[in-house]
Amino acid sequence: MTRYKLTIAYHGEKFAGFQEQTGKITIQSKIEAALSAVTKEPVKIMPSGRTDSGVHALNQVIHFDLQKPLTKTQLSPRGFLYNLNNILKPEIVITEMVKAKKDFHAILSAREKTYVYIIDNRPTPNPFFTDYSWQLKAPLDCRAMQKAAKALLGKHDFTAFCATDSAAKSKIRTVKKIKITTTHPANFVKLPHDRFVTITVTGVGFLKQMVRIIVGTLVSVGQGKMSAQDVKKILHSRDRRLAGATAPGQGLFLNRVKY
Amino acid sequence: MTRYKLTIAYHGEKFAGFQEQTGKITIQSKIEAALSAVTKEPVKIMPSGRTDSGVHALNQVIHFDLQKPLTKTQLSPRGFLYNLNNILKPEIVITEMVKAKKDFHAILSAREKTYVYIIDNRPTPNPFFTDYSWQLKAPLDCRAMQKAAKALLGKHDFTAFCATDSAAKSKIRTVKKIKITTTHPANFVKLPHDRFVTITVTGVGFLKQMVRIIVGTLVSVGQGKMSAQDVKKILHSRDRRLAGATAPGQGLFLNRVKY
Repeated sequence: MTRYKLTIAYHGEKFAGFQEQTGKITIQSKIEAALSAVTKEPVKIMPSGRTDSGVHALNQVIHFDLQKPLTKTQLSPRGFLYNLNNILKPEIVITEMVKAKKDFHAILSAREKTYVYIIDNRPTPNPFFTDYSWQLKAPLDCRAMQKAAKALLGKHDFTAFCATDSAAKSKIRTVKKIKITTTHPANFVKLPHDRFVTITVTGVGFLKQMVRIIVGTLVSVGQGKMSAQDVKKILHSRDRRLAGATAPGQGLFLNRVKY
Repeated sequence: MTRYKLTIAYHGEKFAGFQEQTGKITIQSKIEAALSAVTKEPVKIMPSGRTDSGVHALNQVIHFDLQKPLTKTQLSPRGFLYNLNNILKPEIVITEMVKAKKDFHAILSAREKTYVYIIDNRPTPNPFFTDYSWQLKAPLDCRAMQKAAKALLGKHDFTAFCATDSAAKSKIRTVKKIKITTTHPANFVKLPHDRFVTITVTGVGFLKQMVRIIVGTLVSVGQGKMSAQDVKKILHSRDRRLAGATAPGQGLFLNRVKY
């Protein structure tokens, strides 16, 4: 048995999320089918986390085991990875493949994860970002959002910021950093009056929909509907109903997993 | 009669090009319907140029006339433009509207136009650029392309670089600048091994599919199939069959029109 680690990027729009679901096209089902076709053995993959429907990934990490290790020919530039990417394109691309240690585990070995959320914050959306952002017309107060984000830093019980159907035993997680900026995400599709708000969230691990609920709550603060003090209270309440809406999936990118 | 000038951006993917065509959704038909709905009078628009099917625009310019000039209320931030954009979103956005001089003409008054063409030049495409680029696996020789581009600068008969069904009387056009770079077009969706080749073409005006044929020909040079000398010969031949393929529409952006 040989373990491999893959780094992958995907455009989440056309998938019903990462995790396998009967009758639906998911990222997991597509990658497992491709891996099985190329290796000629049944392959099961394990991701660093299961992204929701519509969510994108720039550097998602997965691991899988093969009964027969890949040969030198298969590991060559025109080999295994090339064939795999030809099956997976254009929505999914494997950007790196390495042999992993036997005890490497995509979830359990992860030390840190970073998500980026993009908000298109102008009266009418930039037509080139509709797949990659949450469109919110009224200008958000980023200072108030940055101030409120402080309440979420550190180790806390994040029950209030977790989908109610989560199966996680412990809701305690550690958020290391939340950064809110208005830098422009692109060079080539800049329009007059563009205003993008980018929320970068780094943590040790996240609960189901946690980043999207954090974003939805900070947006409520940016809209003047909640205060930094409210966010602190919501966290302590452990009541999902008090937090903000779950921000739409298409604005979210899994950016990096550190091991 | 009052003349207005609009600056517009659009994602070309879902349209059968700019120009009105029976039974097809075009950018012209969508904008004219929206303008007529908001102004309550039939409106015809004139663009700086009719972009092809799939081609995008960042700063396309159009003009149109109204029998009744817009009122102060209509020109307010929540007025005319706001309503128009609400009808046109998310594929089209009007970024600016100004009252124009009576003799302003979107085509005839234009002094210079700039197009940008994006090539995703790596073995497997970046999943976030499939709508915005031409995917070419083998690395292009940008130096050779830049050298060959010199032959096209200046005032020439561009018949060899024009769609054969063009209705233009004169095929003489002036190309001012062609710049080939490998800068990355985005900040937020960078992937390892990304390589984008960007071709910027500036001219006084362009023939039908001229930029796409220039790009297709320069790509042939970048692939080693043609030399700079060949490009010179093709230009002089005035034979469309000798030039390269017409590059796909989705990589092309009308970037700017100067008046």
